[in-house]
Amino acid sequence: MMESDPVWEGMGVARRVIPNMKDLMLLHAGPPIEWSRMSGPMKGAVIGAILYEGWAKDDDEAGKFAESGKITFEPNHLHSSVAPMAGIISPNMPVLILKDQKFGNRTFSNLNEGLGKVLRYGAYSPEVIRRLSWMRDTLSRTLEATIDEAKKTKTGIAIKPIIAQALTMGDECHNRLNAATSLILREITPFMLSANVDKKSVTESYEFINQNNFTALNLVMAAAKAMADAAHNIKYSTIVTALTRNGTDAAIFVSGLDQEWFVAPAPVPKGVWFPGYTERDANPDIGDSAITETAGFGGFAMAAAPSIVSWVGGSVAYAIENTQKMYEITHTKNNNFLIPFLDSQGTPTGIDIRKVVRTGITPTINTGIAHKNPGIGQVGAGLVAFPSELFKAALKRYAQRYAI
Amino acid sequence: MMESDPVWEGMGVARRVIPNMKDLMLLHAGPPIEWSRMSGPMKGAVIGAILYEGWAKDDDEAGKFAESGKITFEPNHLHSSVAPMAGIISPNMPVLILKDQKFGNRTFSNLNEGLGKVLRYGAYSPEVIRRLSWMRDTLSRTLEATIDEAKKTKTGIAIKPIIAQALTMGDECHNRLNAATSLILREITPFMLSANVDKKSVTESYEFINQNNFTALNLVMAAAKAMADAAHNIKYSTIVTALTRNGTDAAIFVSGLDQEWFVAPAPVPKGVWFPGYTERDANPDIGDSAITETAGFGGFAMAAAPSIVSWVGGSVAYAIENTQKMYEITHTKNNNFLIPFLDSQGTPTGIDIRKVVRTGITPTINTGIAHKNPGIGQVGAGLVAFPSELFKAALKRYAQRYAI
Repeated sequence: MMESDPVWEGMGVARRVIPNMKDLMLLHAGPPIEWSRMSGPMKGAVIGAILYEGWAKDDDEAGKFAESGKITFEPNHLHSSVAPMAGIISPNMPVLILKDQKFGNRTFSNLNEGLGKVLRYGAYSPEVIRRLSWMRDTLSRTLEATIDEAKKTKTGIAIKPIIAQALTMGDECHNRLNAATSLILREITPFMLSANVDKKSVTESYEFINQNNFTALNLVMAAAKAMADAAHNIKYSTIVTALTRNGTDAAIFVSGLDQEWFVAPAPVPKGVWFPGYTERDANPDIGDSAITETAGFGGFAMAAAPSIVSWVGGSVAYAIENTQKMYEITHTKNNNFLIPFLDSQGTPTGIDIRKVVRTGITPTINTGIAHKNPGIGQVGAGLVAFPSELFKAALKRYAQRYAI
Repeated sequence: MMESDPVWEGMGVARRVIPNMKDLMLLHAGPPIEWSRMSGPMKGAVIGAILYEGWAKDDDEAGKFAESGKITFEPNHLHSSVAPMAGIISPNMPVLILKDQKFGNRTFSNLNEGLGKVLRYGAYSPEVIRRLSWMRDTLSRTLEATIDEAKKTKTGIAIKPIIAQALTMGDECHNRLNAATSLILREITPFMLSANVDKKSVTESYEFINQNNFTALNLVMAAAKAMADAAHNIKYSTIVTALTRNGTDAAIFVSGLDQEWFVAPAPVPKGVWFPGYTERDANPDIGDSAITETAGFGGFAMAAAPSIVSWVGGSVAYAIENTQKMYEITHTKNNNFLIPFLDSQGTPTGIDIRKVVRTGITPTINTGIAHKNPGIGQVGAGLVAFPSELFKAALKRYAQRYAI
């Protein structure tokens, strides 16, 4: 996990670059789920993706198309991909391509749309679809040319050093990415300037990224997926290699237990609410973004990001305490990601299901919170603990599998 | 001090924009000093500035010119200016112009050259002079067009919000400015792109700034000077409005005591040394940059910047302890600059000479360290406490002045 070296090496269109991606397939966050059991925000995002793909001409038709059985729904995680919140990736969406320089495998994520009314939070209004089309036509092409330009002198944009630096700059790199986004912008802008792209596209793309401090999220998630993949499928290993939620269920993968999903109902986060919203509006936990905690940052690195508490709640003391607690359920301290305030100790890394079950402490995730109804969007951000039954079920299965 | 609102409103040439700047005048850091008493790095910087201005054709001639009495040497602080280390500003150097939106006055600083062999550390080789010429011909013109572009939609680039954000991103904004520089770059780049500047100049300027995390230093110093000026010349006030050093002497201004310099020998910083150098190579403390501590950040905000300890020395515990100690000698907590790790307490702001004398605690400065000989450059970075006799002398004078 710590040896993985994911580098952003390009952009692509999902159907062309994501392994086993097919037409009329939608990838989603979390474990497998059929349309009827999908939560509101995921249904909203599916409707939006159908409109974006042009499979239907309005919301109504899109809803009917979704339940018609014509679409294949599959988890991102089974396609080397991760995406935040609803996490819908449709065949013609542009995606980030990362390559692990150490182990050679590729991982993928979509492009971050910003905050507010966005597909990943279940919004699908014309403004959402227009933005997605602009991201496909302008942003992704600009980024493609930019990364191509960067690749004239290096393998791409290395993401691990960016996460490492951002952790010394007040980010935990899941819900606070102000520094990570700044660092990525600083690194890619020279290539954006020298790439063969028209000035309007450069200006618009720069502005779009500059106004969205969550730009870095999808990149660090794809990087975290590479790290987790590096630790996956190791015989006897009790390390968790995916924490993920689809808004209905929460689930984990364990390294030594193949692609077996351990599933339990997704909990509702405790949050800080946007004006006008309360806990009653909240959808249960959703998104692949807990891959950041899986790889040893995000909520696990809260002690590096004292300002995060104004966004997800809690106090600075709690942020430090939470990181300290995560050491009790992880295998080691990360040798890449250091927390300056803990005298540059490495972040707690590698959740061990045995330690979770033994201590009763479950991984704490920093998360965005979607409205439970489709079409609305984000209502807050907060904290959520993964259900303990997942780890118990996994450990039980582990004992059977290895005949212990 | 806390109400001041300094905004970067443009670029100019020193002789045209700095008040009372004259031909054959060199401004310098710290209190007044004649050529013969100048330290090695300041002499080196003077020689470099003479070469840059074309007043002499080689080092030898420049040295003779410096001691000929033809040059007027005056402190930056008497010209609404501040500059780091030797702080030499010559008539044809480009300078940053800041305007205080609250109080209307302007402050100035030069442009940061980066680390290593640079004029402000006393280096004056051809590479140093070439860089200064490029900064005049390309960088400052690009920045001028950039700020002009920004001013189409706002008053300029507000520096206080940048400092405030940077303090939540691991900077203390004196010796660590990674976040501040990133934030400034993010803010000005869109204007740089839309300004009427050739692509080569934009690319070169962007690269130069991007490769120098100290770019923000001179801007935050000029901003701090505006803050200090706002608190200066207030009858009865015992607040320090300048902490400054010229490499030979350290000095302070006190608000209620006009432009009277209180002067003592500059101490040698305790440092972390660049490879091959030791304390024996170090020049005594030099530069106007302690204006940052004067305004309530820099060393006073070390608790916001745990990573700084790898650059200036000490431990994270020491960084926090130092900030805590500075509360004992300051008037208040800053309502702009908050330290996330101290539960968003304001930084200690407004050094009160009465409190310094009563507690025996003197202001601690984070500082770069110059080689004591001219022509060499930076040899380390460290910490230095201002001499207590300055504050005692000022308090004595205060008692006389106000007949207490």
